[in-house]
Amino acid sequence: MNKVEPRIMSGFMELTPEMQIKFNYIYDTIRKTYESFGFLPIDTPVLEYSEILLAKAGGETEKQIYSFKKGDSDISMRFDLTVPLSRYVSQHMNDITFPFKRYQMGKVYRGERPQKGRFREFYQCDIDIIGNGELSIAYDAELPCIIYNVFKKLDFGEFVIKVNNRKILNGFFASLGLSDKITDILRIVDKIDKIGAQNVKEELLKIGVSAEDADKILYFISISGSNDEIIEKLYSLNISDEVFNTGIEEIKTLINYLRLFNIPENNFKIELSIARGLDYYTGTVYETNLVEHPELGSICSGGRYDNLTSYYSNQTMPGVGVSIGLTRLFDQLMQSGLLDRIKIDTSISKVLIVDADNCNFEYITNVANKVRESGINADIYYGEKALKNKMKYANKLNIPFVIIVGENEKNNNQVTLKDMDTGEQIQSSIEEAISKIIG
Amino acid sequence: MNKVEPRIMSGFMELTPEMQIKFNYIYDTIRKTYESFGFLPIDTPVLEYSEILLAKAGGETEKQIYSFKKGDSDISMRFDLTVPLSRYVSQHMNDITFPFKRYQMGKVYRGERPQKGRFREFYQCDIDIIGNGELSIAYDAELPCIIYNVFKKLDFGEFVIKVNNRKILNGFFASLGLSDKITDILRIVDKIDKIGAQNVKEELLKIGVSAEDADKILYFISISGSNDEIIEKLYSLNISDEVFNTGIEEIKTLINYLRLFNIPENNFKIELSIARGLDYYTGTVYETNLVEHPELGSICSGGRYDNLTSYYSNQTMPGVGVSIGLTRLFDQLMQSGLLDRIKIDTSISKVLIVDADNCNFEYITNVANKVRESGINADIYYGEKALKNKMKYANKLNIPFVIIVGENEKNNNQVTLKDMDTGEQIQSSIEEAISKIIG
Repeated sequence: MNKVEPRIMSGFMELTPEMQIKFNYIYDTIRKTYESFGFLPIDTPVLEYSEILLAKAGGETEKQIYSFKKGDSDISMRFDLTVPLSRYVSQHMNDITFPFKRYQMGKVYRGERPQKGRFREFYQCDIDIIGNGELSIAYDAELPCIIYNVFKKLDFGEFVIKVNNRKILNGFFASLGLSDKITDILRIVDKIDKIGAQNVKEELLKIGVSAEDADKILYFISISGSNDEIIEKLYSLNISDEVFNTGIEEIKTLINYLRLFNIPENNFKIELSIARGLDYYTGTVYETNLVEHPELGSICSGGRYDNLTSYYSNQTMPGVGVSIGLTRLFDQLMQSGLLDRIKIDTSISKVLIVDADNCNFEYITNVANKVRESGINADIYYGEKALKNKMKYANKLNIPFVIIVGENEKNNNQVTLKDMDTGEQIQSSIEEAISKIIG
Repeated sequence: MNKVEPRIMSGFMELTPEMQIKFNYIYDTIRKTYESFGFLPIDTPVLEYSEILLAKAGGETEKQIYSFKKGDSDISMRFDLTVPLSRYVSQHMNDITFPFKRYQMGKVYRGERPQKGRFREFYQCDIDIIGNGELSIAYDAELPCIIYNVFKKLDFGEFVIKVNNRKILNGFFASLGLSDKITDILRIVDKIDKIGAQNVKEELLKIGVSAEDADKILYFISISGSNDEIIEKLYSLNISDEVFNTGIEEIKTLINYLRLFNIPENNFKIELSIARGLDYYTGTVYETNLVEHPELGSICSGGRYDNLTSYYSNQTMPGVGVSIGLTRLFDQLMQSGLLDRIKIDTSISKVLIVDADNCNFEYITNVANKVRESGINADIYYGEKALKNKMKYANKLNIPFVIIVGENEKNNNQVTLKDMDTGEQIQSSIEEAISKIIG
């Protein structure tokens, strides 16, 4: 028979079981933290009517979407979890308790040209809080608190949650009469680290910003210092624009709340250059960086929006949310070597039970039953292989203990327990062995 | 703006958060049980080259598959987790430790005509054990042991794991010289409960089975009794076919092992009419039924196969596996009312913390931090709503406790804890409240 070459498409992540265990550890930690703050799970279909998923999309996004026809239906694969959330909330509005705190962690799809660090299938881990008509700004502060707890537990090293408020940006540019140029200006300003202030100024002039305004913009984005100093400097700009001043009040409240949540001061920072998706966010915006790995970019981002459901409903549903792009993050952790330096237990079984003489099936199943009843994951190696092969199996799967059972152990109603780390081997009762494994 | 009607396609399951919590409880229980037996996780892409996924498929299956072109690629959505496993094992053969015990739980897709109980997107929860060249029959017995543990924990009521061996069927029909008619015969025989023995016999005659053979077939499928009695009756047929007798030996060994695993005798049963996918399984086959809900059909099925990887590799990789179709099972549990009778905790948060006077933000975040540090999932209700509304929120989300904080509690460094079940309300220290919540 002709064989088909076994392979997957580029842009798709597939892991060895050992790496998958690490991936799942991170996934589970995120999920547990989301739940510890009371977020409820939902799980929407991967396939939806194109009309639904593309209600908003256009341009680049639309080109990347996997769409196809089946029968009479125009079907698309979801490209994020926000559009499905918007549809879900609009559809089930009457069955939802507001504020609606939901998490969803699942795969999304984008048919991008494959390139390093870009995936066509990737996990997003989203939390959003949706209000019916209104939503307290305290929720804007709860999100960084959750991000803080996630990355504290994951222990990838120092991190900073950068916050900004779109009202500050919008108000600032409105005060200069440049509201219609915001998108272009921010795109140019975003390049300052790469091309320098002088080149940014020249590009600003090219799109019709006056020299005076360009200088004001350059000063504005250069504002730095402690969080309180930045707020002071913003006030001292003496801009009378109402939106601008609402923005400052909001970020001041946010910073105050973050302190009340006991988040260490070095874990959050106002950064005025952060804008995120321009046509979407309307208030607080977030990005998160690993201090020692700035090359990873933002590993958790999001913000506040005025209305989640505008494409499907007449209700006004403000919300605030963040997302972790887990597949990309995991890939970066692998590439940077960071993943190897973090201690993650990669054994599923805590003990392998092996039959030294290949004739004690009854006794080893009895031992296995007792071990599993104690809540310990236990694997049994069946098959008449040499003991050496069975030990190698335990080694390869990083199983920390092996219980060896032979005639002698069976007759004494005992087991031999080998600690695979130290090599130490002792004969004891089953109960003692269980205690040792639990540690 | 014109609104798009928010809706999902038929054949897709989408749950309320409350039902999703129940679904996740079942999902997590299955996953934990799989891991307790040492199965390793893998996660393959939902999209693969059509050439890979359709290497074997044909006929009905192929028509149901969601396939499309993107750029130059012919892409399909996976329709089960077995074909991807086959590709995975072939591709990563050199990095895999054998016997390879893997679980995979994920969504698969079939573009079927929607009908009751059929889904186009559904979760499969698969475990398989793959050997490199050989695989001990003890693994055939480990699978019913895992099924037993899963459904014991899930507590859906009495269940029976029905086992058979394809060698018994193949050998029996070979002894009658009817090997080439097996598929048709089993299709007819399968209808016996509906159409009765006489009609089955007539249909058998129509496809060219002799009257004598038809009677032998009817006797064969009527063989019943205890497991030991069935084995006795099979021997007493005095069939000299080698495959037939190997089948009896295998099922005898299997039954013996199941007893050694301490699986109660009423939870497993030889049933000679079970065949499963005809061109795939070659030895032991399994089906699982809820005794009080036979209308659900088999809720966990699988079997032994001689070679997993024949389409992608020259290696011979025997394996044995079972799958739970979780989406269909969950739907049936809902439809039958069984899900309402099983006690599943549907609260994510164990306590809601509310601010009675809307001015104790600092104190309630302090309380929330302490509660979460104790490992308790806690939600805070922000926003200046009346206390009544906040209690209603706790009620709707099935949160069992509410911590109420006002001026008085703050000044005494205490909290008021309300038990939502009993209505009892007591003022105490934070620590005492935490103890009560943990219970």
